[in-house]
Amino acid sequence: MEMEEVIAEVLQKIVPTEEERAFVKELIGELEGIAREKAQELGLEVKPYFVGSLAKDTYLAGDHDVDLFLAFPLDTPLEEVRERGLELGKEIGKTLGEYEIAYAEHPYVRAKYRDVKVDLVPCYDVRDWKDVRTAVDRSILHTKWVNENLNGKNNEVRLLKRFLKGIKAYGSEIYVRGFSGYLSEILVIKYGSFVEVLEKADFILRQKVVDPAGWLKREPEIAMKTVRREVEEDKPLVVIDPVDPRRNVAANLSWEKYGRFYFKADEFLQRPSLEFFFPTGKTGGDYLAELRRKGTHLITLLFDVPEMVDDLLFPQLERSARGFEKALSREGFEVLGWNTGRYGAEKAFVMLELDRVERPRVKIHPGPEFFTERGRDFYRKNERVWLVGKRLYAEKRVKENIIDVVRELLEKNQVALGKNLRETVKGAEILVDYVPRPLENEAYLFLSREKEGLKH
Amino acid sequence: MEMEEVIAEVLQKIVPTEEERAFVKELIGELEGIAREKAQELGLEVKPYFVGSLAKDTYLAGDHDVDLFLAFPLDTPLEEVRERGLELGKEIGKTLGEYEIAYAEHPYVRAKYRDVKVDLVPCYDVRDWKDVRTAVDRSILHTKWVNENLNGKNNEVRLLKRFLKGIKAYGSEIYVRGFSGYLSEILVIKYGSFVEVLEKADFILRQKVVDPAGWLKREPEIAMKTVRREVEEDKPLVVIDPVDPRRNVAANLSWEKYGRFYFKADEFLQRPSLEFFFPTGKTGGDYLAELRRKGTHLITLLFDVPEMVDDLLFPQLERSARGFEKALSREGFEVLGWNTGRYGAEKAFVMLELDRVERPRVKIHPGPEFFTERGRDFYRKNERVWLVGKRLYAEKRVKENIIDVVRELLEKNQVALGKNLRETVKGAEILVDYVPRPLENEAYLFLSREKEGLKH
Repeated sequence: MEMEEVIAEVLQKIVPTEEERAFVKELIGELEGIAREKAQELGLEVKPYFVGSLAKDTYLAGDHDVDLFLAFPLDTPLEEVRERGLELGKEIGKTLGEYEIAYAEHPYVRAKYRDVKVDLVPCYDVRDWKDVRTAVDRSILHTKWVNENLNGKNNEVRLLKRFLKGIKAYGSEIYVRGFSGYLSEILVIKYGSFVEVLEKADFILRQKVVDPAGWLKREPEIAMKTVRREVEEDKPLVVIDPVDPRRNVAANLSWEKYGRFYFKADEFLQRPSLEFFFPTGKTGGDYLAELRRKGTHLITLLFDVPEMVDDLLFPQLERSARGFEKALSREGFEVLGWNTGRYGAEKAFVMLELDRVERPRVKIHPGPEFFTERGRDFYRKNERVWLVGKRLYAEKRVKENIIDVVRELLEKNQVALGKNLRETVKGAEILVDYVPRPLENEAYLFLSREKEGLKH
Repeated sequence: MEMEEVIAEVLQKIVPTEEERAFVKELIGELEGIAREKAQELGLEVKPYFVGSLAKDTYLAGDHDVDLFLAFPLDTPLEEVRERGLELGKEIGKTLGEYEIAYAEHPYVRAKYRDVKVDLVPCYDVRDWKDVRTAVDRSILHTKWVNENLNGKNNEVRLLKRFLKGIKAYGSEIYVRGFSGYLSEILVIKYGSFVEVLEKADFILRQKVVDPAGWLKREPEIAMKTVRREVEEDKPLVVIDPVDPRRNVAANLSWEKYGRFYFKADEFLQRPSLEFFFPTGKTGGDYLAELRRKGTHLITLLFDVPEMVDDLLFPQLERSARGFEKALSREGFEVLGWNTGRYGAEKAFVMLELDRVERPRVKIHPGPEFFTERGRDFYRKNERVWLVGKRLYAEKRVKENIIDVVRELLEKNQVALGKNLRETVKGAEILVDYVPRPLENEAYLFLSREKEGLKH
């Protein structure tokens, strides 16, 4: 398939129809009206701003969640923005129908209206970066900057976003660490088009610093400080935020996600195909066959999770998996990989691929130097004891079976776990070389590396 | 048993009888006569010296090998000492009966006379340390110093030597690294008696430096240089040689052997027993039962060895065992311990205790950073490939069985082996959890840690 054909076909699927556009326009009109009305009723001098991909007209067809920011004058005390902003959000939410409170740096209202998710976020009405006081304040500036600079390349952004989603490199959530929508927009603005961004995958990485708004000239000291800080933290890219020289737009982009983009961009340019944008779901396979093929073992911990949003839960699951990896490797089990996720509404899982599930019944236990008080103690207390250099060693009986080892590690608090999971993981069900049916495909994707593999 | 009783009983066994003394005296007389005669015949101005425990009267009953040194005048060229010394040795050897050439720093003759081993070693007739030119030259000075300072404490030395033999801490050979006879003599001279040396096991270690001849006052610069050098090399003791301030008599003493002495001295003083001097041979046990108890595995390599003295062979066997330890641990097998030795007249063995003999069929293979030429290569060449940070990883198929792994490591020269063993080890027979009958007890002593264990 030719590049043009592929792109044309993708565009057909991702550019919103006139019908959808009309719906969105109407929606925005209604929401703005309601917001103004409610602000007035509460006697608040608040301006409603639409931000995000909807406001920038870079949303993908069918994906039109609304971000409505409620901007307070700069001289409003922060406490008032928090409280009265939430109050206003609730009032609007009530009018729209169902709503709930969500928590980020500050609480905000998440409502649903005409089947569309509407976030109502209090913020300051900032004019430039010097006014920024809360994390969300920049959004208004981002929207403004993109709209002023995109120059009709909205569909190029849509292509890039869809491509990044297809190759699993999209999303700036802390547990994804991929490309954000804003970063995609900046790259298109800077390099001209979807294809040009892809062609520059290697170049961009080598350049390292992207400065579309020329901050390095306008505010060299501040911008250089940003560059130095981010380079020191070994970030793959430093994209100086066009609206704030103190910020790296790509601060949360991981090397892994840039790597996916790096290889997939090249492959797509070599052999364009729809598959990159819309990967056909894996048919899956037999995880037990995969275990046999590799000669490895799978242990799965299933446990209840407290009510938590993914943003909070997923990093804690990962932290716990890493904790097991470290603790088990100290115990002589090699962890070849791990995988975590939700299991149903109230449970989560940690999967660990291990080199074995049994170990010797004895372990060599290094002791102190022999000529110390502790050395003489160690000598007295151990039956089989010997020296290597000046250090004493002894044979120590240990649990041999992986389940016993894991239970003991948990009992002795020797696994670093996510802080809200400490208690619940202790009561985990531990499965060896077996997962319940709903996790079979997950286990297969994990063990076969299709999940994180670059070639799938 | 009281200390006095034990000591009395030991002395009875280790002090030579009048009969033995008479035999030794006669032997020495004869040997001296023959040596003088042969030197004269060859027109050599050589003085015969008896050195070692026989000459110092510190030999253990029944253990009366002769060290006869053939001392050349200091103005003899080294080459002449080597050649004519060997010639003289051969002449004496012929007169005595059978003999062979042995190799140390210089070749010497090892003869047998009246069922006693007689070493005939060419050296210089040195007056003090400034004259020392070859490693053996000091022996004459050692003998002289001990005889001048021992003050009739010969049996105290015998007790200490027998004790050190009993606890397996005696012998200065490079593959033993224990206490030498000369070191035992110095300790008795310095601390007064066998029991006093034992009582000071901790004190001596803490003092670190023993200077019986007062070199630190007489030659402070040279002696301090010796102390600094040996302390830097982390030797357990620095015993400045009474006849040479440049030398640490305990240079070859290992921490392990001092550790044995340290604990056994204390135990003996607490509960004196003959067992320390004459350990009753272990009855041995079942090595297979030991493997089952520990849940570990034993692999044994049997291979031919070239004709080599123990001094050369044993360090090479140890080096090879360490080589396997390192190579196998890189391959994911934990080596809990190793053991080496001769097997019959022409073979040697390396035993390795392992945590397992099978591993997964796949290994995680770390590759280069993704954005390099090598990274793109790695990506192309591997099927299952993923990123951790900026580094690529791939799944690699590996041999799973220990025999295949060892064979492959040897084929690819990935095991550091003793230099004369490289070829022969490649043809080794590899046994898993089985040893031939003559090695069964050796395997048991190794696996049960009775061999190196401090408590046996």
